[in-house]
Amino acid sequence: MKTFMDENFLLQTETAQKLYHEHAAKMPIIDYHCHLIPQMVAENKRFESIAQIWLMGDHYKWRAMRSNGVAERFCTGKDTTDWEKFEKWAETVPYTFRNPLYHWTHLELKTAFGITETLNPQNARKIYDQCNDLIKNDPKFTPRGLMEHYNVKIVCTTDDPVDTLEWHKQVAADPTMKTRMLPAWRPDKAMAVEVPENFRAYVELLSERSGISISSFNDFIDALQNRHDFFASMGCKLSDHGIEEFYAEDYTDAEISAIFNKVYGGTALTQEEILKFKSAMMYIFAVQDAIAGWAQQFHYGAIRDNNTKMFRQLGPDTGFDSIGEFNTAKKCSKFLNRLNMEDHLAKTILYNLNPCANEVLATMLGNFQDGSCPGKIQWGSGWWFLDQKDGMQKQMNALSVLGLLSRFVGMLTDSRSFLSYPRHEYFRRILCNLVGTDIENGEVPYTGYEQERMNQMIEDICYNNALNYFQF
Amino acid sequence: MKTFMDENFLLQTETAQKLYHEHAAKMPIIDYHCHLIPQMVAENKRFESIAQIWLMGDHYKWRAMRSNGVAERFCTGKDTTDWEKFEKWAETVPYTFRNPLYHWTHLELKTAFGITETLNPQNARKIYDQCNDLIKNDPKFTPRGLMEHYNVKIVCTTDDPVDTLEWHKQVAADPTMKTRMLPAWRPDKAMAVEVPENFRAYVELLSERSGISISSFNDFIDALQNRHDFFASMGCKLSDHGIEEFYAEDYTDAEISAIFNKVYGGTALTQEEILKFKSAMMYIFAVQDAIAGWAQQFHYGAIRDNNTKMFRQLGPDTGFDSIGEFNTAKKCSKFLNRLNMEDHLAKTILYNLNPCANEVLATMLGNFQDGSCPGKIQWGSGWWFLDQKDGMQKQMNALSVLGLLSRFVGMLTDSRSFLSYPRHEYFRRILCNLVGTDIENGEVPYTGYEQERMNQMIEDICYNNALNYFQF
Amino acid sequence: MKTFMDENFLLQTETAQKLYHEHAAKMPIIDYHCHLIPQMVAENKRFESIAQIWLMGDHYKWRAMRSNGVAERFCTGKDTTDWEKFEKWAETVPYTFRNPLYHWTHLELKTAFGITETLNPQNARKIYDQCNDLIKNDPKFTPRGLMEHYNVKIVCTTDDPVDTLEWHKQVAADPTMKTRMLPAWRPDKAMAVEVPENFRAYVELLSERSGISISSFNDFIDALQNRHDFFASMGCKLSDHGIEEFYAEDYTDAEISAIFNKVYGGTALTQEEILKFKSAMMYIFAVQDAIAGWAQQFHYGAIRDNNTKMFRQLGPDTGFDSIGEFNTAKKCSKFLNRLNMEDHLAKTILYNLNPCANEVLATMLGNFQDGSCPGKIQWGSGWWFLDQKDGMQKQMNALSVLGLLSRFVGMLTDSRSFLSYPRHEYFRRILCNLVGTDIENGEVPYTGYEQERMNQMIEDICYNNALNYFQF
Repeated sequence: MKTFMDENFLLQTETAQKLYHEHAAKMPIIDYHCHLIPQMVAENKRFESIAQIWLMGDHYKWRAMRSNGVAERFCTGKDTTDWEKFEKWAETVPYTFRNPLYHWTHLELKTAFGITETLNPQNARKIYDQCNDLIKNDPKFTPRGLMEHYNVKIVCTTDDPVDTLEWHKQVAADPTMKTRMLPAWRPDKAMAVEVPENFRAYVELLSERSGISISSFNDFIDALQNRHDFFASMGCKLSDHGIEEFYAEDYTDAEISAIFNKVYGGTALTQEEILKFKSAMMYIFAVQDAIAGWAQQFHYGAIRDNNTKMFRQLGPDTGFDSIGEFNTAKKCSKFLNRLNMEDHLAKTILYNLNPCANEVLATMLGNFQDGSCPGKIQWGSGWWFLDQKDGMQKQMNALSVLGLLSRFVGMLTDSRSFLSYPRHEYFRRILCNLVGTDIENGEVPYTGYEQERMNQMIEDICYNNALNYFQF
Repeated sequence: MKTFMDENFLLQTETAQKLYHEHAAKMPIIDYHCHLIPQMVAENKRFESIAQIWLMGDHYKWRAMRSNGVAERFCTGKDTTDWEKFEKWAETVPYTFRNPLYHWTHLELKTAFGITETLNPQNARKIYDQCNDLIKNDPKFTPRGLMEHYNVKIVCTTDDPVDTLEWHKQVAADPTMKTRMLPAWRPDKAMAVEVPENFRAYVELLSERSGISISSFNDFIDALQNRHDFFASMGCKLSDHGIEEFYAEDYTDAEISAIFNKVYGGTALTQEEILKFKSAMMYIFAVQDAIAGWAQQFHYGAIRDNNTKMFRQLGPDTGFDSIGEFNTAKKCSKFLNRLNMEDHLAKTILYNLNPCANEVLATMLGNFQDGSCPGKIQWGSGWWFLDQKDGMQKQMNALSVLGLLSRFVGMLTDSRSFLSYPRHEYFRRILCNLVGTDIENGEVPYTGYEQERMNQMIEDICYNNALNYFQF
Repeated sequence: MKTFMDENFLLQTETAQKLYHEHAAKMPIIDYHCHLIPQMVAENKRFESIAQIWLMGDHYKWRAMRSNGVAERFCTGKDTTDWEKFEKWAETVPYTFRNPLYHWTHLELKTAFGITETLNPQNARKIYDQCNDLIKNDPKFTPRGLMEHYNVKIVCTTDDPVDTLEWHKQVAADPTMKTRMLPAWRPDKAMAVEVPENFRAYVELLSERSGISISSFNDFIDALQNRHDFFASMGCKLSDHGIEEFYAEDYTDAEISAIFNKVYGGTALTQEEILKFKSAMMYIFAVQDAIAGWAQQFHYGAIRDNNTKMFRQLGPDTGFDSIGEFNTAKKCSKFLNRLNMEDHLAKTILYNLNPCANEVLATMLGNFQDGSCPGKIQWGSGWWFLDQKDGMQKQMNALSVLGLLSRFVGMLTDSRSFLSYPRHEYFRRILCNLVGTDIENGEVPYTGYEQERMNQMIEDICYNNALNYFQF
């Protein structure tokens, strides 16, 4: 029986171990998509307790606790203490066997805090105190300290076009900062026309931030372009779009101008108008990215805020989203094809949430690979619910048999927490185990030229591919 | 090479064997969803031959025989003898290698009859005679005998609201009966408004059985509530609904009353009216269950009676159903969300038939877990076509990574046969093998506190979780 | 560590090795569905270089090269030499680790050319020259030579109803030809009514070839029947249909006649008319096949020509197709059910492209198995993107648990290349490995009667089942 989470955790063969320890482990981290709060990096925030780092805002853990029968007040309540929340989490942990939370929890305890005990109700208080002691006294347990500790070279945050990027500026100007923090462009609100007053408020803020007076759709696009240029000047290299599904309705420019005027004027749009507007914006965003030489990311397929009662209480992103069912292949193809025909198809990363779309996306890539750079169209690593061993294995296996694993830009955390970098280690172990197993089984050669290529492939997927792809 | 179906059948590691033999095997069985005929239990029916137990009504075996080129008369024909049918089945058995029928057949022969030979045309007559001899002479081979033999503590049958439950009464009053047999509420016919005359006949029978005169939709619901109360008084703790997909159309009470009057009056409904009526009934059923403190089960996703020629000859449930394709996530969410908003969401078990919905359901659960009890919303074990090793593994793996396996209420037979209890053994072996493999690979700890928790988890999934969940 | 691609390639257990070497390897090949060019067989074409065999028309390789950043001129360009193209392919090969191309490439080098080195940029020129030397000087490297070398007994090409089958005639009359080459009926163009002028041209050619003057829909069907009879006289035993999804709209004969007249008269059809016409043609084709005693194949689920820019440059089948998303279970069932009700359901093989439909098709079969012959309704082996280890394993596993693997008609190449026969070896190794693993794990017995049955099953799936099924 293998010891739990020893140095060869998840590495079931000697070759896998060799690939990981000699090639994967040494590579730095590029975390090209995350949700860290730039202000916390700029101010290098000191945390007060492990509960704050672990449980505040972590809807993955809240979901597990609720599933385990823990009352809401111990998840998000204001009337419970940090310790009470931590205690309930520690009670839940041994019920998360086989869930990625069990692995993430102990990888974080081990690699950040040096704790190799497994968390349970019996040692909860001891571990709580031990972690809090480190958090309060050791400068490693700050945003910057953790980034350095985990050898993170570059992080890309997720920022709205109206964001001033003031914290990015501050960090960029700080010579003591060892990790590069770059913004990424997330213009979802610029196509969120469902509620006219929200959209109008957004347009007004965009006008203010861009310094461009907006009285027409063309002005609106000019203002966005202004911000796009500003983001580019701040080192932005990629965009991200959270969409339910791909929008590729036919429309005319006149229709879109009229829709803009209507919604800006305060009138609710029809479903058809909303789809047309989103289709136009997706196209315009994509052209802007192509011209700027950025990569664009699309995350699609969630159904969000399913629990109205809790949405009213807690708002979005609190653990009440799940995997949707969308037949989107034809629309995705139509969207990419239009851009490609007009020579405006940027480097693109597609992420699905329903694993049923794995093979659809894995083969969609090939339709638009044009030889201009290796792996121009990418299929993103297992996202959200799929960001776990089974999900990552399925993604890498399907990518391998239907595309080129060698050209994969690899892992990102997508996380709100500074403790999530071990997810890169988790990914790398899984990658090395898959490849190592193939080698041991004689399905891939591992001598001479091919051995070097395989070793290089591991290093590339861990770091070099992302570096070259995004041209940081 | 491991011997076929030895004591460590399906248990590939020492830890898996230990988990199974020391923890899973000893637990009694709660079969909370099955299709046994209560009268057969009440009368403790004596069977005449193994062909009657195995081949009468078993559409799984008929499908296999038809696929193997066996003529219909040997499946369902009245002009063939028991022996002739058994002989054709024995010829088919060696063609079912890798199909669950091969395992079920030999688990049943072994655990009920003590026969460890593998059935084939050479030994068919011998085994036929041997089984029949036992069936005729050994009281173990009666419904009650088999339930005791397999350590079944509780079974829940599947009953229509108009059922008198007379056989349940008789069994409940019998002090020699060692297994508790409880009814379960299956009101599918109360929303089957496709054929007005059938629905009217059903309403009239419901009126008679409830003693409530029905002349309006409100009367209809009152009569159902009357039967619901009666079922509760008979120990019923759960309902079950066989639906093609989730129904969650918007409607008004006035619309539903009018639809009821229309169909009751003999006029065929439009497709839209049918969907509205089903949406209303699903909601009302769910509220009734919530108020009674029952759990509700939803089985969705089959396409039934695909073969009209055979349907006309044999009727439903004769082996001509298959897996459908439905995009139902949003409607399922809407249905559950309405109930949750109104504080009427009962404990719920969702079953899908298309494995493409595995991750959809596994993440749907989390949207409505409210901490009121562990695992309030459940994802049911592999159903029907998915009730086999691969299907169960995929269900347990997806549940593990997307939810809490620890809180799973586990296995049920869904069977019409008194010989199907080894399916619990089959499930338990698969469960222990999955978990044992994880332990051996160092992916789950297995010492001290965690070892005890893991052992307990196995016992819980086999028995305790269901006992606590349904509050039998 | 196992040596790459040694004699026990993909065979992970002793039993798997025994099954393969003693039972699978010796069986001849029936390639019942491929896209070879009959003229090349008739003329026994001499190839000029390995680049011509490997890279001309092979859109799998082009996709991989484009994904690897290779410019289009090295894939399909007229301004690059055979060597330049081969060099780029050799550079790409080590980037295809884990892709079936890596295995196919080296199986072909090994089994046809006797080259066991792995292709990479360092040995590319040497291997290029070595292969070309053999191709130019050794008669084995001709269409017929390769078929004999790979022990191919029967191949079925894919032919349009208007094809004269002249090359088939020539080959059939040639006593030196050791492989039987039979036509297969692919009438896709007879229902391609999207572009009226194309359809009219097709009808005119059909009229010419059949010698039947066509001025009505009935004439059109008579002409098709005439060609159907001609194909039958040439030994045709099966048809094939490439459809996006199943068409099963309701229609009247009068509607279809009117639609035929409209499109033949040059007027574009509505989407509804197109669907009705296709529905009618699918039915008529199926009845023709049933009456002739042929088997019919349906390949559905691709989305084609996604890249308009490249389609305009290169035309169809150039590597810009991918996996679509279709909910087709009900229509497929409706289509098959109508034929079955009218006693006109031919032997049928269903192929899906999206693996999400695996379980749907695997259970669809059982709806229409009528006992008239073993495995009358078949689920085809992993098609196109799914024709790789993972795809084939999933297909065989789902077929096993949801149907009868024993009755599977097995592998076909679907290929345009005379070097693709090792795909049968690849399939057989995967099959033997799956079954061997089950035996080693004690999940299938392997002694006495059952051992012989299992050995026979392997031989049947490799050869006998197809021979018996198609009645060649």
